[in-house]
Parts: sequence; structure tokens; C-alpha cells
Amino acid sequence: MTAGAFTPPWLDQPPPPGSWRALFKWGAPGQFKHPNARLYRMLKEVFGMTDDDFRTPTRTGLDPARAARPSGLDGAAQADLEALLGPENVGTGDLERIAAACGKGMLDLLRLRRCIAPHLPDAVLHPRDRHDLVRIMEYCCRAGIPMIPRGGATSVTRGLECPRGGVALDLRTHMDRVIRFNETDQTITVQPGMFGPRLERILNRAPEWFGASRRYTCGHFPQSFECSTVGGWVATRGAGQDSTYFGKIEDLVLAQEYVTPAGVIRTGEHPAAATGPDTDQILMGGEGAFGVLSEVTLKVFRFMPENRCRFGYLFPDWARALDAARATLQGQFGHPSVFRLSDPRETEVALKLYGLERAPLEGLLSAFGLRRGERSLLLGATEGERGFARQVRRRIGRICRGLGALPVSGLAARAWERGRFRDPYLRDALQDFGILTDTLECAVSWDGLERVRRGVQAFCAQRPRTLCLTHLSHGYPQGASLYFVFMTRMDAIPEYLAFQAGILDVIRDQGAAMSHHHGIGRMAGPWLEGQLGAGQMALFRAIKRHLDPQGLMNPGGTLGLDPPPGDPS
Amino acid sequence: MTAGAFTPPWLDQPPPPGSWRALFKWGAPGQFKHPNARLYRMLKEVFGMTDDDFRTPTRTGLDPARAARPSGLDGAAQADLEALLGPENVGTGDLERIAAACGKGMLDLLRLRRCIAPHLPDAVLHPRDRHDLVRIMEYCCRAGIPMIPRGGATSVTRGLECPRGGVALDLRTHMDRVIRFNETDQTITVQPGMFGPRLERILNRAPEWFGASRRYTCGHFPQSFECSTVGGWVATRGAGQDSTYFGKIEDLVLAQEYVTPAGVIRTGEHPAAATGPDTDQILMGGEGAFGVLSEVTLKVFRFMPENRCRFGYLFPDWARALDAARATLQGQFGHPSVFRLSDPRETEVALKLYGLERAPLEGLLSAFGLRRGERSLLLGATEGERGFARQVRRRIGRICRGLGALPVSGLAARAWERGRFRDPYLRDALQDFGILTDTLECAVSWDGLERVRRGVQAFCAQRPRTLCLTHLSHGYPQGASLYFVFMTRMDAIPEYLAFQAGILDVIRDQGAAMSHHHGIGRMAGPWLEGQLGAGQMALFRAIKRHLDPQGLMNPGGTLGLDPPPGDPS
Repeated sequence: MTAGAFTPPWLDQPPPPGSWRALFKWGAPGQFKHPNARLYRMLKEVFGMTDDDFRTPTRTGLDPARAARPSGLDGAAQADLEALLGPENVGTGDLERIAAACGKGMLDLLRLRRCIAPHLPDAVLHPRDRHDLVRIMEYCCRAGIPMIPRGGATSVTRGLECPRGGVALDLRTHMDRVIRFNETDQTITVQPGMFGPRLERILNRAPEWFGASRRYTCGHFPQSFECSTVGGWVATRGAGQDSTYFGKIEDLVLAQEYVTPAGVIRTGEHPAAATGPDTDQILMGGEGAFGVLSEVTLKVFRFMPENRCRFGYLFPDWARALDAARATLQGQFGHPSVFRLSDPRETEVALKLYGLERAPLEGLLSAFGLRRGERSLLLGATEGERGFARQVRRRIGRICRGLGALPVSGLAARAWERGRFRDPYLRDALQDFGILTDTLECAVSWDGLERVRRGVQAFCAQRPRTLCLTHLSHGYPQGASLYFVFMTRMDAIPEYLAFQAGILDVIRDQGAAMSHHHGIGRMAGPWLEGQLGAGQMALFRAIKRHLDPQGLMNPGGTLGLDPPPGDPS
Repeated sequence: MTAGAFTPPWLDQPPPPGSWRALFKWGAPGQFKHPNARLYRMLKEVFGMTDDDFRTPTRTGLDPARAARPSGLDGAAQADLEALLGPENVGTGDLERIAAACGKGMLDLLRLRRCIAPHLPDAVLHPRDRHDLVRIMEYCCRAGIPMIPRGGATSVTRGLECPRGGVALDLRTHMDRVIRFNETDQTITVQPGMFGPRLERILNRAPEWFGASRRYTCGHFPQSFECSTVGGWVATRGAGQDSTYFGKIEDLVLAQEYVTPAGVIRTGEHPAAATGPDTDQILMGGEGAFGVLSEVTLKVFRFMPENRCRFGYLFPDWARALDAARATLQGQFGHPSVFRLSDPRETEVALKLYGLERAPLEGLLSAFGLRRGERSLLLGATEGERGFARQVRRRIGRICRGLGALPVSGLAARAWERGRFRDPYLRDALQDFGILTDTLECAVSWDGLERVRRGVQAFCAQRPRTLCLTHLSHGYPQGASLYFVFMTRMDAIPEYLAFQAGILDVIRDQGAAMSHHHGIGRMAGPWLEGQLGAGQMALFRAIKRHLDPQGLMNPGGTLGLDPPPGDPS
């Protein structure tokens, strides 16, 4: 096979500053991930492509980015805002305005690759502290100017678009500080613009930073970890890859402070309470539609990476793998941190990606009756105090072996771990050659899980040469989240939107929650009422009316609270 | 000391049916708990009493109960309601109306013992199902009639009083059924009027009831367990004595259905979600002020009583005991189920109550430097899968011994367990002789815990011969709940209310949550805004306005949402 020697001309230079590509490229400008030979071969096979299809990258977005319309902010408003914040904290340039309104969803990428950037803010403001937020809020409420908070801008749900214009509030610039650390309570209070890696570094180095007696960890590692902020985690009710042990962000938040059009709301740092509705649980997941998070107190954990135990098992089929997952999460012996169960289709890709498919393993697998297209891969890790972590690891092993799984050592989990924050880089490389990779996720009870997975796969099967990879990414005693990765050759925006809508229909109709950890944004907004019902949506709108009576906070379809934007495609 | 031979004439006959005593007596009519000789001796000593003070019980409430005013329901409304529900489901008799409006708080007891029953409903309705609730809701909203849902009526926060009259909705009579059991998801869906013991019996016997493959437990055992309903647990955000492992009721609820004046709201059975505010967390703890819970889906656990490991440790002092508690709850090796840490004052009472004070133990304790008035008793148990329960038990042992604690065997925990639901019976016996026993509880961070405990104790110390016993009753990595038991000779209602108000002031001023698991009711309603702030209260009132625009749901001070009743004392 001499064709195996061909390597596509993957783009491997940092994109030109100011280019469209600089806006849509994932992560650090100088970092890339390209398919390895095994994956490349598979892609050609699955999508019916040849090396010729990989000779010329298209829509690479190397041209300078430009906004279709200038800022609509009038001179007086600009002067007022500059007086409030200092001129250096009011930006109206094209690049800044486009960057503020774009996330990392596939629609963002499709648009940016064709030099479209609709729904821009009129200015980007850089508040320095809570007082600035209060002043901005007062000014914009008087002037009727929409406000759209933003953190790391990794939204995949169109959470940052500004269909009514207004001002984007960039919380990363100044509001990224530690307010306080309390070792007795094991909490840290930070501003919302702090990035994940910085928070984790500070906590890991708590003895040096705070004179603490131990090292700590935030326990929250979403795939976007390197590019996302604490505020974004809270606004979208995010989950990390280790959340099955540490909990979702709503389990990790102890207290919050929001600046809203109705005033500042601050919750108390109580470990639990029986004092009426849980205000934290009302405001988290507000996606900027209720107010701006100005401070958040997070629970932190002891940093004990030396206790981490990794595991990997290959099951003969998905049904037994699911049984093992449920037995683990209902077993009452403690939860693992990472718990990723790939369905047979994803398993084949994962084995290629993590290098497990090579001989002699493949021979061994066949000998054990672990057949391609049926076998299902479980990867995971346990965490916590040493004895706890080991015992959870042991119990999981017993369950898996009892259900006929073959241990594949912790190496697979290690390989996954090394790549855990790097997989999104792949997406840009593939899209340069017309292969679209998109994801959707949802949460569902054990009882409904297969219904949802089969429904989504059946929908995708209607489209030729379309891969739908599924994994269970977070588990609970009562159910799990399902994460779908779609890969197909597709380029037209209306076709993409129709495809996505079809899957969202299935998720809603089969009874899953529309999102487990990405949030709703404008993307799934139109589906939310179908899931929650009119009663819950009316309640959300009543809360919105109280906190934001003029509808100025992240308006235009967020959480389905108001009409979505008319979309140019 | 021949005086030791005297036994007070404890009342040990079931109260006459229809008497005031039948209304206020705790629990089953034929069950009693009287102080043992050790406790009796201590009481006399602490309160400066002699046997003579225990010769004649007073205000025993043996007379027939009567309402001060007849039902205010007009004939037409009564006929309409009878047409809706059947005449057998509309009660207007004195006894039923008084019983519906009384809880088990000390104010209830003080009033009933002096034949006062203010704030009665005009009728007690017995809805048969959700459709009845919808019909009642429609009728009462049209007619402007207040509605007050009730379960087991063990409220200690004046949650059931009807200062605006109206109809009490007794959910125990018919709405106590299982709707469905799902073994795959480990959930049970029940109506709100189901009592704790019945729920637990059904789950324990799941193989017989549902053909399940295992036995299950609800994991929720409040002190009121035998007399309280699932609906009451949810309405007040209750906690059970094993909640440090199983979680508070808000952790155990997966989905709910409410009938509200704004319509029926139903939440989905998803294990987690990122779909905006958490509606379950808005409605739980509503204390009947937002609507009536008509159905609730609870997470259930495997029933494995054989794995329960009990422990008991006696610490040289409270500071080291607290260190051990925090080390346990922050240790990341899993949580115990029961975790009760008594402060030195309560420790002395507990040692008497559970028979641990007898020789040779007392000699042993002194030899170990565990001095009266300083030593602190920790009782607990672990739960879950066998290896998990044992390992948690072992780790706790290591922590406690490392901090100088002496193991007192699992016998103390067993003795406590046997009495766990029986202690409230003591209260009636003591009150017959003028000793008032009252409780308050709150939730606070580790960092603030001693401030709150000392504040409350300092307040109580201002009053002569007043015992304030404190224990930490539920623990979390970030703090704990503090439970205070007050004992004093007191009888006048205004004096009692002033005393209680003083403690509530301290709890609020020292930064604790006003309740960890009793809820707020009308009792702490006036303090809630001081804890939460105006912003959160305004948000709660906006939710109330949306769900109950006419203010008909449990009106008159509940959760501080509207003006409290003018109180006759």
C-alpha cells in the first residue's frame, strides 16, 4: 500500500493574526493535532474519500477578518462608557467585536470559514471590578443597551451572539483575581474571568500562594479546560471530565454574587440550608440572561494525583458494558472520577486514536471474542484518599470482569488523559478537507438511555456516510449523560442546521434533558420548552422579568426566554 | 439518699380521645419515654428542683378540645366543596380543624396546654388525587379561599397555622400511594401523603411488592420519621439522621409534580442537566407557599443493614472533636451516614441517657483524662457496600485515635439508635412538670461554627438554670449543621417567644443559615430576610407572585413572604 505514504498538507502554522482562522481555530495558535495514519485510513474508508480529497485544504480563513457593519454605539454613549471605565476598557474594533460574539460551535466555524460574523456587539467593555459592573448595569439600563457577559468564549451553543447589538462584557481582562482562600472551609472565592489552568495552578500551589498546609485541586476539568473560565462553567452548568467523582459545577459552587438589573444578589456560604428556594440553583445556568456573575466561591479538594488509579476494560458488547456502568454507579462503594464508556462505533475510533488496535492486542482481542463493531471500551480513573481510590478501582474491576470484560490496562486511560484537552484541535484539521465534526450531549435516566442513543443513531443512519460515535461521559445512580460525536462531509450551513435540528428533535422527543453540561444558549433554546413544559418555562420567564425587566441581559433567544435572532446563514 | 427512690407520677396512659393532650402529645398515643433515674437526678440538680416539684403534673391538657370559633365556611362553599370531593372528604369539626393547624413546635405545645388554638382553617379537605387538587385549586382561586397543605403535622416552625382561615388540604388520607417503582433507575414515585415507615417498609420489601431483584431503602430518617410524610420532608427541605451519607431530601428528589394556582408543573427524571435554573430546587422548600406537591420521584438505595458499622469516640475536648469531624468530612474517603458530635454539655446528658456513665466506664474515662465538662462524644455509623462501609469506619477510627479520642465501642451508637425516634416522647413528660425542652438548628461553615455555638450559648447563659446542649448533626466538607436543645423551667408564652427570638437573632447575626432541615415556617419567617438579604427575598416574592398571584397558598408569614399573623399569646 504505497498510498499509505501520502500525508495530507495539514496546516501547521499559527494562523495570521487578525485572520478569520485566528478567530475560529481551537486553542493555542501554535498547537495542532492531526489524524494519525490509522485514523486517516479509517476516515478515507468511512467517508469514501481518497488521498486526492486531501490535497487542497479549503475555506481555511487565512484572510483578515472584517465586520460587516461598524459599531452602532453612538458617540455620546461611547464617551459616557469611556468616562466610566477609562478609554482603554472600551473597544469598538472589528476584530474585538467579532471575537466577542463567536464561540466554538460548528455554526461559528462554518460561518467564520465563509467570512460571516453576524450578531456582533457594538462595543466590548472590560470591567475592572464589581463596581464597574454596577455602573455599567445602571448606565445600560437607563440607555436601554443590551449586555452580554463573556468568559473564554468556548460556547458551543451560540451563547455569545449579540443579535440585539449592545455591549459585550469581557470578564477575562481584569476580573480574573482570587478574592480569598479559606483552608478551614476548603473554599476559594474568585472572580468569573479566571481561566481554568490558572485556578488549578493556584490551588495546586496553595502552600506557596496562601501558606496553606496542603495542595488543592478544583476538580473541574471540562474538555475546554485550557480555554474556559470559571464564570463560563457556572453560567452553563458545566461538567468536567472527572465530574462523576467531584460533581458538576453546580455541586462545586458554594456561593455566588451577581450584578443584575434588579440589584446585587449575594448568596451565603452555607454547606446546606432549609430556607426556601435554593438561590444558587436559580442563578447557575442563567447563561448571562439574569445578570453578571461577579464572584463565586468554589469548594476545593485535596490534590492527591499520586492516588489516581486508572482502568480500562473492553466488553464483548454494549449491553454488558451498560450493565457494568449501572452496577458501578449504583454500587454504593464510591464513584470513579473519569468514567467514559464508548459504544461499539466509538470504540473502534478510540482504539485507533489511542493506539490500542495494533498487534498483538488485536489478535488477543479476537481470541477473546471481542469483535469489531460489538466490543465496547470503558476508560476511567478513581480519585480521592488512597484506600478509597484503590477500593473503588478494585470493585469496578470485579464488576467488569464478572460481565466478561477484558482488562486493557491503565495505559488506554493514560493515552486518553494525555489527549483529553487536545482532541478539539483535530476538528480544524479535518474541516480543512470538508469533514465536519460536531457534538451534542444530553442527560437521561438509565431506563431511557438506549432509546435516546438508538433514536439519534437511527436519525444519523438516514444520511449516507455519517458517523455517529456515542459515549456515556458522566454517570449517576439514576442515569448518565450521553455524548454524541458526529462526523460527515458537509459544508452548507442550512444543511448543517437541519441535521442538528433533527438530532435535537430526537433528544427532546425521547425524553432526555436537552443538555447535561453545554448549556442551552440560542442553539437549543427553541427546543427547551418542549422538554421542560410550559409551566417551567413560564416560571423561568417570571424570574427573568423580575431580574431583568427590560430584557437587556444576553437577549435574543438565550434559554428560549425571548425570541431568537433572525438568522443569516 | 432515700430520695432516689421517688419516682414522679409520669403520665403513662393514652390521652383521652378528643382531649387537648391527644393533640399535642408526641407520637403514638400509647407510647411514652420518661427520664431514667440518672437523668432525673441531673434535672433536679441543674434546675434546682426537688422531688416535691415532681409530685403534681400541671397543664396536662386532659380536657376535651374546643375551637374558639366555628368554621367560617359559608354554606354555599361547603356545598360546592362537598360536591367536588364527596361530603366525607370535607371536615369542619372542631377537633379536625385544630389538629390541622397545629404542629409539634414548643409554641404549639404551650398553647394547647392552655387550651388555645388560634389560626384555624375553616375546613379540612381530603383530596383523593391530583384531579381533586386541580379542582380544589380552581375553586379556591375563584372564591379567594386560602389553601394550606399538610402532611404528618410535625412542623416545629408554625408551618401549618391558618391565620387567614381557608382550607387545610390533608394529603395523608388518600394521597399516600405508590405511583411507580423503577428498579433500573432505582427510583420510586409516590404521593406526598405517604408516611416514612410505610415508604421504608415498601422499599425494604421491594421483591414482594414489585418483584424487584433486591431490597431498597429510602435513606431518609428524620427524628420525626415515624410521624412525618414524604411531602413534609420535601416541603421543608428536611434531613434524616443518616443524611451525611444519603444526602438531604433535596439530594434525594429526582422529580416532582406540583399543582399551583398557575397550573401544574412537572419536572423531568433526569440525573442532571444544564438547562437553566433547577426547577426542583426552586419548588423544594416552598413550604406550601407556591403550590401543593402532588407526586415526587425519589432516588432509592440498596438496603444493606448488615453492612452498617457503628462507632463511638470520646474526645478529651471539643476542639479536638471538631478537628476530627472536619478531617473526616474533608478526607475524601467517603462519608459516614450518622455523624453526631455532642459538645461537652450534651455529652454529659448523652452519657446519662445512653447508660455510658456507669462504672466501670466512668473510672476508665477519668484515667484517660476525659474530664466531665470537657469531653465530647462522637457517635456514628457507616453504610453502603460492605468494603466501603468498613473502610470509612476504619479511617474515622484512625483520625479519632490520632486526635486522642477513646473508642467507646459501637454500643453507644446502638443505644442512641434504639432511642433515635423516641427522644421526643421525653419532652411531654418533662413539660408536665414545668420543664420546657425546645430545639433550634442552623447550618454554618466550619469557619463560623464556633462563633455561632458560642453566641447561642452566651445568650442562654444570661438566663439562670438554662441548659443549652449542642451537637453537630450533619456534616459536609464545607461545614455542618448545629442542633441546639434548650431546657429550662419556663411556662409563659411571651417569655418563651422572647427567648426564642434572642437565639434566632444570634443565629442570623453570626452568619448561619436560619435552618438546615426544619424549614422556616412562620416561626423564623421574620428572620429570613436578615439572613438572605433583600435581593434574594425579592426574588422569592417574584416567584411567589408568579405561581400564586392572589397569595392564597399557605399565607400569613410562611417563609417571610407575606405579613405574619397577629399573634394571640
